[in-house]
Amino acid sequence: MLSLHFLTCFKQELEGFIAKGIFKQALEKGLFRITFHDLRDFGFGKHNKIDDYPFSNKKGMILGADVVYNAVTSIEDYENMRIIYTCPKGVVLNQTLSTELYQCQKEIIIISGYYEGIDERIFELLPIEQISIGDYIINNGDSAAVVIAETLIRQQPGVLGNEACIADESHFTGLLGESHFTQPVTVNNIEAPAILRSGNHKAIQKYKEKTALKNTLVNRLDLLAKSKITSNQKQLITEILNEMVVKHNDK
Amino acid sequence: MLSLHFLTCFKQELEGFIAKGIFKQALEKGLFRITFHDLRDFGFGKHNKIDDYPFSNKKGMILGADVVYNAVTSIEDYENMRIIYTCPKGVVLNQTLSTELYQCQKEIIIISGYYEGIDERIFELLPIEQISIGDYIINNGDSAAVVIAETLIRQQPGVLGNEACIADESHFTGLLGESHFTQPVTVNNIEAPAILRSGNHKAIQKYKEKTALKNTLVNRLDLLAKSKITSNQKQLITEILNEMVVKHNDK
Repeated sequence: MLSLHFLTCFKQELEGFIAKGIFKQALEKGLFRITFHDLRDFGFGKHNKIDDYPFSNKKGMILGADVVYNAVTSIEDYENMRIIYTCPKGVVLNQTLSTELYQCQKEIIIISGYYEGIDERIFELLPIEQISIGDYIINNGDSAAVVIAETLIRQQPGVLGNEACIADESHFTGLLGESHFTQPVTVNNIEAPAILRSGNHKAIQKYKEKTALKNTLVNRLDLLAKSKITSNQKQLITEILNEMVVKHNDK
Repeated sequence: MLSLHFLTCFKQELEGFIAKGIFKQALEKGLFRITFHDLRDFGFGKHNKIDDYPFSNKKGMILGADVVYNAVTSIEDYENMRIIYTCPKGVVLNQTLSTELYQCQKEIIIISGYYEGIDERIFELLPIEQISIGDYIINNGDSAAVVIAETLIRQQPGVLGNEACIADESHFTGLLGESHFTQPVTVNNIEAPAILRSGNHKAIQKYKEKTALKNTLVNRLDLLAKSKITSNQKQLITEILNEMVVKHNDK
């Protein structure tokens, strides 16, 4: 069973945000476990100080290596857990990395970064993996910790109602997902595609595959470039491009 | 002033998570504004239904285009706001996109995605931009909404204590940041680099630049490949590689 330990300065806020909706139900059923450890409990002095100025200048604050070391090593059996630190300097998370993390180790410690980061010596003291969620700057590591946790928790069997959904989504097939339509049939005078309501399963399958290809073609050409395209997909791409040209010329 | 409107099913949890730490202080000072709109208020029937099965199969649920349309258009002056939908099918967020968003429009609506996404017709009805935070699958759009919001909020002047920090971080220079060290001088027998405590500003500057290059070299060769490398940086990279070879041979 997946068991996540969070090292954070915002225990309550993190717990409230993660344990909502279907994750809350799954927690109550005991399908996974989350434990929150307050970094400030490991601070020094009467103000529980966890950070200090970097050597050589007085700009920004750095989390103490001793503070983080004491916090991690306070977790029972930490030696057998994988330790992740959310950090813009890390390798960038993708679904392959998340799947690998989930499959290899069910007990994981996730450290939220704050300020300018942790004193570099922590990486000599503990086998910490630095993971970034993307090439942008967020407020602190808590939202990255949530993102990493969510990608892991939803892999735990039983957490999602319909397990078939897990593998069927964007970034599992290497392409973006298909376009979706639901009730009502007409919304503000726009009708849902008749084909999807036709009962013709072969045509529906083709329509879905085509919209998935089109979504990838329009928004993520980089994914398409990395995929192995079947001859059937090649034909669909030609159809899409022809339709786009016709639509463009009609304007 | 930045004003963010969130369309979500988890108003309370989202507000609690965003309005913490320095963001809470900045909110109290009135430096930016956040408003939360509950998608369920726009649901239909006595159960405030916001989703339904897709046409053609009974797997997964789709948010109604009418529900989302009614929710967005209930926001006063929505026609003059930029509308973002958190979605794995969108373009991938990076710091350039976030900076562009912040600079171009201060009133932004962020729609959290749920289930398999929104009925595709919403994108014909409203000029919605689809943004993904990365190539992985999260629980729902709320954590992506937080991530996008955080990258925007921290650009608002006054929110961060030290404004110099905003531009000085990873992903603004195109390279990863330097390694940091703070008190105490010795942690578990590992001493902080003497150079940083030497007062020799030129040597300190070189040390910092070198660690930033090394971090990028080790974790993100892709960023280095995209950067314009100065001749000075080239020399530092040669030094780093030579030191790594020596260290490897010493083992």
